[in-house]
Amino acid sequence: MSRERLQALRDELQRQQVHAFLVPRGDEYQNEYVPASDERLAWLTGFTGSAGMAAVGLAHAALFVDGRYTLQAQQELGDQPVDQENLDLNAIADWLCEQLKAGEALGYDPRLHTEPGLALLKKRLGERDIALRPLEQNPIDSVWSDRPAPPCGTARPHPHTFTGEHSAEKRQRIAARLADKRADALWLPNPEVCAWLFNIRGNDVPHLPVALASALLYRDGSATLYLAQEAVSEALIEHLNSDVAIVSDKEALFAAAKRHHVSRIWVDPAITNCWTLQHLRAQEIELLQERDPIIAAKARKNSVELAGSRAAHERDGAALCEFLAELPDAVAAGTADNSFGELEAVQLLRAKREQREGFADDSFDSISGYGPNGAIVHYRVSRESSLALKAEGIYLIDSGGQYPDGTTDVTRTVALGEFPAHARDHFTRVLKGHIALASLRFPRGTCGEQVDTFARKSLWDAGLDYAHGTGHGVGSFLSVHEGPQRVGKAATGVALEAGMILSNEPGFYLTGQYGIRIENLVFIKESAEHRGFLEFEELTLAPIERKLIDPELLSEQEKDWLNRYHQRVRETLMPLVNAKTQAWLEQATAAL
Amino acid sequence: MSRERLQALRDELQRQQVHAFLVPRGDEYQNEYVPASDERLAWLTGFTGSAGMAAVGLAHAALFVDGRYTLQAQQELGDQPVDQENLDLNAIADWLCEQLKAGEALGYDPRLHTEPGLALLKKRLGERDIALRPLEQNPIDSVWSDRPAPPCGTARPHPHTFTGEHSAEKRQRIAARLADKRADALWLPNPEVCAWLFNIRGNDVPHLPVALASALLYRDGSATLYLAQEAVSEALIEHLNSDVAIVSDKEALFAAAKRHHVSRIWVDPAITNCWTLQHLRAQEIELLQERDPIIAAKARKNSVELAGSRAAHERDGAALCEFLAELPDAVAAGTADNSFGELEAVQLLRAKREQREGFADDSFDSISGYGPNGAIVHYRVSRESSLALKAEGIYLIDSGGQYPDGTTDVTRTVALGEFPAHARDHFTRVLKGHIALASLRFPRGTCGEQVDTFARKSLWDAGLDYAHGTGHGVGSFLSVHEGPQRVGKAATGVALEAGMILSNEPGFYLTGQYGIRIENLVFIKESAEHRGFLEFEELTLAPIERKLIDPELLSEQEKDWLNRYHQRVRETLMPLVNAKTQAWLEQATAAL
Repeated sequence: MSRERLQALRDELQRQQVHAFLVPRGDEYQNEYVPASDERLAWLTGFTGSAGMAAVGLAHAALFVDGRYTLQAQQELGDQPVDQENLDLNAIADWLCEQLKAGEALGYDPRLHTEPGLALLKKRLGERDIALRPLEQNPIDSVWSDRPAPPCGTARPHPHTFTGEHSAEKRQRIAARLADKRADALWLPNPEVCAWLFNIRGNDVPHLPVALASALLYRDGSATLYLAQEAVSEALIEHLNSDVAIVSDKEALFAAAKRHHVSRIWVDPAITNCWTLQHLRAQEIELLQERDPIIAAKARKNSVELAGSRAAHERDGAALCEFLAELPDAVAAGTADNSFGELEAVQLLRAKREQREGFADDSFDSISGYGPNGAIVHYRVSRESSLALKAEGIYLIDSGGQYPDGTTDVTRTVALGEFPAHARDHFTRVLKGHIALASLRFPRGTCGEQVDTFARKSLWDAGLDYAHGTGHGVGSFLSVHEGPQRVGKAATGVALEAGMILSNEPGFYLTGQYGIRIENLVFIKESAEHRGFLEFEELTLAPIERKLIDPELLSEQEKDWLNRYHQRVRETLMPLVNAKTQAWLEQATAAL
Repeated sequence: MSRERLQALRDELQRQQVHAFLVPRGDEYQNEYVPASDERLAWLTGFTGSAGMAAVGLAHAALFVDGRYTLQAQQELGDQPVDQENLDLNAIADWLCEQLKAGEALGYDPRLHTEPGLALLKKRLGERDIALRPLEQNPIDSVWSDRPAPPCGTARPHPHTFTGEHSAEKRQRIAARLADKRADALWLPNPEVCAWLFNIRGNDVPHLPVALASALLYRDGSATLYLAQEAVSEALIEHLNSDVAIVSDKEALFAAAKRHHVSRIWVDPAITNCWTLQHLRAQEIELLQERDPIIAAKARKNSVELAGSRAAHERDGAALCEFLAELPDAVAAGTADNSFGELEAVQLLRAKREQREGFADDSFDSISGYGPNGAIVHYRVSRESSLALKAEGIYLIDSGGQYPDGTTDVTRTVALGEFPAHARDHFTRVLKGHIALASLRFPRGTCGEQVDTFARKSLWDAGLDYAHGTGHGVGSFLSVHEGPQRVGKAATGVALEAGMILSNEPGFYLTGQYGIRIENLVFIKESAEHRGFLEFEELTLAPIERKLIDPELLSEQEKDWLNRYHQRVRETLMPLVNAKTQAWLEQATAAL
């Protein structure tokens, strides 16, 4: 944390008459990835992780990060006088209760927080007679002199050939839900739900192909959409037609609500910032606080979206296979001068993807972990951390692409040469878990937390486990992490439904030695054979490292699954890859 | 519903100036089994199921029961003018909203309801300006002329050889939790928590060996215990010693709280009736509303309780085996005149249990279902429903015993002769599910809902399932259904812990043909091999029907599990059973 920046912020806090301030890592849309102009936490602290919160008092400051970022935060904070604590609301409340006295006030930017996110702090500080005060002007923005410009504003129609459903149809479908709930309008708080409902995409955020937007949908299916002035083009206006009024000032949405006589509005408090709720309440609009209906609707892909995802996964699989086929030569060529490391591997893979039709961006920062770095679950390679790859040991690569017809996310773990003998046992157990989930049939109504354990059982048998979830939803040329479904130990209460795309990614991590993860995307479909039951179908196409499999540990059904999967990978990708990769693919997909 | 009783009740409602009244099936302790003097719902409606609620207005009346009791309620209600509805709080609210007008009042007996149980009704009726009015005098009690006397009051010390921990030790242990929560006292609302804390048992309730009781535990480990006057003996007073004051008037507990200067009290609203909370609030005592700490403490059995359970299961298994060994002859002897039916089977099994040391009672009403009756999950045999057993088809018997050293609960499904071919497939899938759960190793922190699906997977593979939970907790000479742990589809958030006893009871039911269930009790223990992992150990000892197993469907590990289990059953029970049963046991436990 730069002492100058910290001092400037404290001066501003005193000017605004608050005694502490919260700096979350996030923007007003609660996005996972944020524009550079919203990287306030990184500007203030130097910490660049994807989750964290700083609390700055007049005398002391603290950075709160979760377990995966403990080491990184230490390095990035350096020797600044900042407490480092666990990212936990009670820990933040404890720290603030120590710093603040009764009668003092904690400031926050109401655009960057949700009410449920602040509820515990409000309760805990309230007990000590410490107020929470929303600040109209973010104090960091007042002192951040070299702040990057906000995204210039991009938006384009997303064609019907990719969406399969016109915006007008989607709006009618969702508007019918409003009538059921006696709501006059639905508040669309973020770019993802707007992108889906209006069939638009953009480039305002890294990895997430959206335009920054929010909107109001009325009960008759018409809407008011906020977009930056620069984002509005003739093509867009034509695409949206007269049912959708575009405004370029966020407060114009509130005026539009008034003009449409909205007296009861559906808002999802989990994804809507406090600033919006404060404005709606100020207009005396009644709030129906329920889960956003678009989140569930966009999770269930239609047949066009699923066909698009299949096509995108073929191109993406071909790119990944060319990377994997060329990897040994690249490693060999770089061995003498350590010139081919984790970072160069990411660049090679990116180059392969860029050759594929429609590739728009990586869907997230690739995790490229060699040996011990592979054991760091949320590892992000940097120039400093990048290890040179050698023709030995184990390498893990978790990456994905954004294509207009689909979003991909795949992890493969490969042997670059000799490896510790126990790795074969670990890899095969992870594979058994992967197959157990992939081949599961389950009744309608089953939630992710109920099937999670199938992916873990083979590890549990050996007294092992992994400390992350097993699966997350994935969007259609949208976020690579999408709800509401999730497969993990924590209860979601969300049933898995036909059309949802999920990742299946069990793993095992041996600290200081290697990481193993096998991740495919699948989609959920009705069982053809058994009414009321659902099954998975694989989307991801790439060989699973045969050298790391102990066939003795696999049942006949498991071998069958793997051989059938590899056959499909081979037959589908063979026509799509270069000659070198064709030869490699033949071997990599040979039957066990 | 008798018209005379209904009319008498309505007259009483008018006298008490309410316009409707709720009649739940339950007593003031929210017990699963209730004394005859509390069977108000059965007295009013004739309905004898274990769950239900009547709502009686001045013009109409309704009985609400769940799916398992729909048919039975129809039969028991007969031609009375009573609506029959689904047991669901929203359905009850709907019905009451139709019957009552704004300004009218719904009466309820505050002793028979909890606040969470009434919350939805309060909200729904409140929106219509209909009041909920607690009645000091239950109107049914005013008109129930031949009401049975309340239990005469029984209580006796439960010896240390069975409990393994003195009451004073338990009281200190729980009192330490009070200090943590800054509570002056804990309210013990029901006989089960009192039985555990004070090491007393009684005979006031069918199947549940407890004395009707409630109590207050103070922060210093002393207590005030309410028991009926008749229950208090010299032995009991000596057992409880001077730290425990006994009172025979429930309101004396509130006076005791005042005398002990209790200003903040821990109460669990889920198990404490409204009447109690009203009285505590009237004394201006602050309520700390959290889950009762005794429920979790009594779920984790100590080594003495586990040894007791093992011993009880040996005697119970011996009794069950003698029953199963004699069943074919009994069936054959009764075939000519249909004299051996489901009811006689229950009597034979009870007679076998009564021969065993310490047998006190059945732990619940046995489920004895032949052929199609076996497919009714919560079937209770009566003289009218009892089918005569023949030397063919499939018979299911789910039963248990109360012994001072342990409570048992076991289900076996047996072939009495020829049976439909597909039953073998169904039985073997149920067995595979049973074994999958029984042989599971899982990390600490895992909840019941996370392991439930292992018991279902073999059925899911064939597009089948069962519509009940997989496992429930079991007490130590206490309730056969005990929380907080549970294995089922619904989320509990309760981790499975070492020392807990659980049932493992997957099943399959083919309507009109047969029911299959295989139930053992197990306890949870630390894995000797893998730190941080837990495993199950079988308590129940009885052969699993070999005639119904298709060995082709079992893996080698599954066969091993079954053969090892059967070997243990044989070696343990052989010395405990009669000669006829010894010969039967030899065959019934032969290796596959």
